[in-house]
Amino acid sequence: MTDTSTAPLSEEQLSLIDAYWRAANYLSVGQIYLLDNPLLREPLKPEHVKPRLLGHWGTTPGLNLIYAHMNRLIKERDLNVIYLAGPGHGGPGLVANTYLEGTYSEIYSAIGQTEDGIRKLFRQFSFPGGIPSHVAPETPGSIHEGGELGYSLVHAYGAAFDNPDLIALCVIGDGEAETGPLAASWHSNKFLDPAQDGAVLPILHLNGYKIANPTVLARIPQAELAELLAGYGYEPIFVTGDDPASVHQQLAAAMEKSVDQIHAIQKHAREGHEGERPAWPAIVLRTPKGWTGPKVVDGLPVEGTWRAHQVPLAETRTNAEHRAQLEEWMRSYKPEELFTEEGALISSLAELAPEGERRMGANPHANGGALLRDLVLPDFRDYGVEIERPGVTVSEATKVLGTWLRDVIRLNPDNFRLMGPDETASNRLQAVFEATDRAWEGSRLDTDEHLAPNGRVMEVLSEHLCQGWLEGYLLTGRHGLFNCYEAFIHIIDAMFNQHAKWLKTTNDIPWRRPISSLNYLLSSHVWRQDHNGFSHQDPGFIDHVVNKKAEVVRVYLPPDTNTLLSVADHCLRSRQYVNVVVAGKQPALTYLTMDEAVAHCTRGLGIWEWASNTRGEPDVVIASAGDIPTLEALAATDILRQKLPDLKVRFVNVVDMMRLQDEREHPHGLSDRDFDTLFTRDKPVIFAYHGYPWLVHRLTYRRTNHGNIHVRGYKEEGTTTTPFDMVMLNDLDRFHLVIDVIDRVPGLGSTQAVLRQEMSDARLAARAYTRENGEDDPEISGWSWPG
Amino acid sequence: MTDTSTAPLSEEQLSLIDAYWRAANYLSVGQIYLLDNPLLREPLKPEHVKPRLLGHWGTTPGLNLIYAHMNRLIKERDLNVIYLAGPGHGGPGLVANTYLEGTYSEIYSAIGQTEDGIRKLFRQFSFPGGIPSHVAPETPGSIHEGGELGYSLVHAYGAAFDNPDLIALCVIGDGEAETGPLAASWHSNKFLDPAQDGAVLPILHLNGYKIANPTVLARIPQAELAELLAGYGYEPIFVTGDDPASVHQQLAAAMEKSVDQIHAIQKHAREGHEGERPAWPAIVLRTPKGWTGPKVVDGLPVEGTWRAHQVPLAETRTNAEHRAQLEEWMRSYKPEELFTEEGALISSLAELAPEGERRMGANPHANGGALLRDLVLPDFRDYGVEIERPGVTVSEATKVLGTWLRDVIRLNPDNFRLMGPDETASNRLQAVFEATDRAWEGSRLDTDEHLAPNGRVMEVLSEHLCQGWLEGYLLTGRHGLFNCYEAFIHIIDAMFNQHAKWLKTTNDIPWRRPISSLNYLLSSHVWRQDHNGFSHQDPGFIDHVVNKKAEVVRVYLPPDTNTLLSVADHCLRSRQYVNVVVAGKQPALTYLTMDEAVAHCTRGLGIWEWASNTRGEPDVVIASAGDIPTLEALAATDILRQKLPDLKVRFVNVVDMMRLQDEREHPHGLSDRDFDTLFTRDKPVIFAYHGYPWLVHRLTYRRTNHGNIHVRGYKEEGTTTTPFDMVMLNDLDRFHLVIDVIDRVPGLGSTQAVLRQEMSDARLAARAYTRENGEDDPEISGWSWPG
Repeated sequence: MTDTSTAPLSEEQLSLIDAYWRAANYLSVGQIYLLDNPLLREPLKPEHVKPRLLGHWGTTPGLNLIYAHMNRLIKERDLNVIYLAGPGHGGPGLVANTYLEGTYSEIYSAIGQTEDGIRKLFRQFSFPGGIPSHVAPETPGSIHEGGELGYSLVHAYGAAFDNPDLIALCVIGDGEAETGPLAASWHSNKFLDPAQDGAVLPILHLNGYKIANPTVLARIPQAELAELLAGYGYEPIFVTGDDPASVHQQLAAAMEKSVDQIHAIQKHAREGHEGERPAWPAIVLRTPKGWTGPKVVDGLPVEGTWRAHQVPLAETRTNAEHRAQLEEWMRSYKPEELFTEEGALISSLAELAPEGERRMGANPHANGGALLRDLVLPDFRDYGVEIERPGVTVSEATKVLGTWLRDVIRLNPDNFRLMGPDETASNRLQAVFEATDRAWEGSRLDTDEHLAPNGRVMEVLSEHLCQGWLEGYLLTGRHGLFNCYEAFIHIIDAMFNQHAKWLKTTNDIPWRRPISSLNYLLSSHVWRQDHNGFSHQDPGFIDHVVNKKAEVVRVYLPPDTNTLLSVADHCLRSRQYVNVVVAGKQPALTYLTMDEAVAHCTRGLGIWEWASNTRGEPDVVIASAGDIPTLEALAATDILRQKLPDLKVRFVNVVDMMRLQDEREHPHGLSDRDFDTLFTRDKPVIFAYHGYPWLVHRLTYRRTNHGNIHVRGYKEEGTTTTPFDMVMLNDLDRFHLVIDVIDRVPGLGSTQAVLRQEMSDARLAARAYTRENGEDDPEISGWSWPG
Repeated sequence: MTDTSTAPLSEEQLSLIDAYWRAANYLSVGQIYLLDNPLLREPLKPEHVKPRLLGHWGTTPGLNLIYAHMNRLIKERDLNVIYLAGPGHGGPGLVANTYLEGTYSEIYSAIGQTEDGIRKLFRQFSFPGGIPSHVAPETPGSIHEGGELGYSLVHAYGAAFDNPDLIALCVIGDGEAETGPLAASWHSNKFLDPAQDGAVLPILHLNGYKIANPTVLARIPQAELAELLAGYGYEPIFVTGDDPASVHQQLAAAMEKSVDQIHAIQKHAREGHEGERPAWPAIVLRTPKGWTGPKVVDGLPVEGTWRAHQVPLAETRTNAEHRAQLEEWMRSYKPEELFTEEGALISSLAELAPEGERRMGANPHANGGALLRDLVLPDFRDYGVEIERPGVTVSEATKVLGTWLRDVIRLNPDNFRLMGPDETASNRLQAVFEATDRAWEGSRLDTDEHLAPNGRVMEVLSEHLCQGWLEGYLLTGRHGLFNCYEAFIHIIDAMFNQHAKWLKTTNDIPWRRPISSLNYLLSSHVWRQDHNGFSHQDPGFIDHVVNKKAEVVRVYLPPDTNTLLSVADHCLRSRQYVNVVVAGKQPALTYLTMDEAVAHCTRGLGIWEWASNTRGEPDVVIASAGDIPTLEALAATDILRQKLPDLKVRFVNVVDMMRLQDEREHPHGLSDRDFDTLFTRDKPVIFAYHGYPWLVHRLTYRRTNHGNIHVRGYKEEGTTTTPFDMVMLNDLDRFHLVIDVIDRVPGLGSTQAVLRQEMSDARLAARAYTRENGEDDPEISGWSWPG
């Protein structure tokens, strides 16, 4: 049922767009099934069919339909659009469309616009040595794989920020829509500035099923769904049907209306009107799963059911009936009307696609590195803390970093964003609010501070949104930093996985240009959860990160303010990495001058001569990584100097954890010779480490002296208590480190037992003091390096 | 503005409930601030105040208000209610209320109903040696810590399933409401059966702010919020104000109405009426953050702003003005009217609390172990695969497990649920649908299969919901299993953390009774992502899990069907653990008879004599953990037998990964002597492992022979390809394992070079075959143990 008011397509336009859609569907089915006979010039034989059928048909016709209709609008209105396929396992659809528009053949020249090109296109799909079954980094025009579901909409918003002319078209699968991250992503419209940012056009594609079940949003009344979307702040436009002609007209009208609304909203805002947050359009497209595919297979309904999810006909090589059905299905698209004798798309259809960079497969925003501009970075050395000598000057590392970030924001007003789950001030980066505000499109009150539509700081109580926005922002060629409580960064473990995999894969794709690194600043870390206790203590993100490919991950544990500045500058200049930086926010001792800090961070680890009492071979190496472990290790060194002045101690600090690993395992890895030089071949090493101790073992297990490395770290003991009680609970305290030293250095004789007792007594006394007074003994908490 | 129709409280009732609320608020503030002078019998002096002020005031008055009003309804109507505090950092509130109702003193007898008891109550809060600042396992009546935000509502639903008389009252903070998991949790009402399940009463508490920002839901128009909740399927009831009298009346009315609606819905369903999914009530409570606290501090507004989030007056020990304000604030609650001379709550207020197990702090559902009934488990031995000899019979491990789970479900119709993100059939557990359906309250179509309101299988495309529902279900004393794709279980890494921490803490709390273990079945694992490729490959959840306390985590890698059955039975009988089981779903070889499987799983690891060609000291140990690594390791052993018949090979298989660890590190750990006996003290060990290889090093780095252990596993190489190509990409294939062996066994002479070349050629040939044919060489994929 189509009335003319909602039938923007002429008969000819409708016929052409339908043919284009059929061409995309044909090429999609061909990829899933065919090895040969790509244009069905002869009857289908078993050997034309792939032996293993791998792919997902169900979502594909919907993805193709939307692509064809967006092409029309791009061409008519010269729009700047990228296409995010939430149901990314519909890979054949995006490959088909980028092939039809010509992008694919330009990038992959072996896949030409000929019958042989189509043969290769089909064969390579989900085939050993070919391309993955999903919309992958290999797919032109994609910034979103969709293998792990839930992130399409948040990626789309990330792409739209600071891209005023861009429309991020986001197809959301109704399976994906059940995920938590997607459910929260709708609220991203409260953080999008219509004046300065681009637009997101969500198309919720209700094909009704996930793998084996109906979906929630497809099975609630339409009125309820309309309320839900209105409640999320959108104006929903419904397109429903299973008759192609009707759906074409409805969708064409819906997309025109959506783009009209987007432009009206933007025009209003860009003419300087302030006012209510606008209701952005969102399309709900309800069409059958596996639309145009087999209706019934082996007597069971397929089209419009969950059975259409993957491969509707499973035995096309061995079952003649299945094969006949496949042939009938493919011929139903009338390939002979779509492709020339040579195998090229007929010109009347080829003309439907946009041209050049307007093609969604060729839009440079989807290859963000191509648009990447270097950040303008103020000289971090100017922000450092002056120190006279090591270990006496107190400073707050992240607070100082905040002053540098403030100026990074000033110098890069449209190219850098700071994300955080409402923790920017808690993590002491508040100086940034001297330069900018928090992005906020909700209503504002007089008592509010630092809220503005175009703020550069993005705070929402969702690590998923912070991560997803930043990923979308980076993948479209910009820069950013995500600051987060250390423990809760695990919330996005899985998202990190996918981004690290994306980076790893793009390293091997020549046409993908390098993008800015994904930078994490983890503050409010495990050792200083004074307000929160055990639930907020987890330093394991580092362990999670180092499981990924060495060439894309970096972990830094700057021990003080000046080293943090140096590390941060390095990270913001880097490309194609995930950088994890863990730094404290509390007042703490500063150990290195800025020049020393730069030199130390450049090496990544090194001997601190001022904390060592020998330049030669030591009796023991005390090593540290992380701010609190460094404090305790230095305090232990101080005790050893007093109690055992003849003991030769070397103090080593590690900033770049990857230096510990073998050079064959990680590009930053030390050679065995250098490692042996630092850590000796046979002396005890007492290593005070920020996180779970076994990580140090894992990184060093091949080293000569590994058997002598003894690591202290967090061992899942904690509660709401004082800072020194926390290190004692985990045996990382100065007294226990001294015990560790004397238990491992031979030849101490009776001194060992005496000192051991003294240290045990000191621990008991410290604990008693804390429990009596509710705070740490000032003799301990006020310790500084004696010089 | 209160009209009588919504003013259910008499003047006296209002006065009493307000006094009760003031008492809770008084005790909350006292916990945050006071060391002594708990009832303000004398003017407040610096030494009465804690030196470190740790806690969160902002959310607390709201939590207290709701508690008082729920008490009233419980008492009036004899309701069975547990209280979930989403803003769990409002710990003082829940401690205060459980103290007022008497539960706290019953459990912690040192904290009596006296002035001294109040002094101790205050002192212990957030104090070294005391209790955590959050609603923690130590807090009576809690199943939800709320340290990591977002899971209150999903926990509440988990508690309500199969608890027809229970109302899970769930306070949702408006910060928490921004998280993805919470946003998705609202849809849990599509899975709740009003006939068989209990009810959830969500109270969205809009106090307007998170840590330092306004919240999204507090700053959208009320009409938009109403649409959002209606779209989620609820009927919202708004309670708004800052005048206590008005809010008391409104909230009393709203709660009465909610409970009336809940009972009406349940009655209708339980009388056998089918029909539309009901709209459950949800209350939106909009009151100021830090309500009744200081309005202005140091000239800045506090009450009703984000500044009330933690400790509104920060310097009460050193700043006399702050101290005076604190005293004024506490005296505003009129403690002299609330507590007797001895320090007990006055009887007119004490009578307001419910009695016995109706008290929310004493409700046994919040100490689920107290209600735990053992599962009735069918004998898993009856479900095993018959084998004649090892390594020739093909079976699908998870498919067979499904038949046992089917009967577990039949035998435990109200005490066991199977959760999964739409993957139960994909993971081949479909036999369960012979016994039950999927829980589904949405609309149903003729083509649907196995959907019913009271299904025991819960499928939603959200790992967060699966995990959260199961946690809530376990914490209230029931049993379950979560089946998930291996890669995507990382989505709930952070939720696992919190649950593992909960278990660890409750192990040390005598009144907390042990609950059933949280069981994961990870199938569709890294090695067999034939349809999906690289994005679906991540075996790192094991690494994540083993960072938690050894006493609560277990990891099993059963190599075949019979061992999977034995492991599953063991896990479902266990208590207080997190059990991770990784098992394949594809047709695979079966190695052990059921008796052998039971014996092998009981040991956790052991020599497979039938695959070894020596009973004495071997030349090399080949070890495996996981189904695919075991297949490749056995195939390598087969090659070695043919090519090097004199080489003495011992074959060791590991099911229980924790056996590898030191007995001092893990309760399952092998002694060094036993480890040396199995793995020798000095022979090469080639270890084929399911996951990231360094985990084996981490678990074994202290072992005598560690330097000779050479591990192959997943090293982040993969795409959509064939099973054998996948193992080749990661050097885990049989040919590479043979190369690993001959490179490490000394004295092979020229044989080494010849065999090495042969194996390299075999790899190249296998790859060429795959790329030519799109499937693995049947000689390789069809391999079985020669016997």
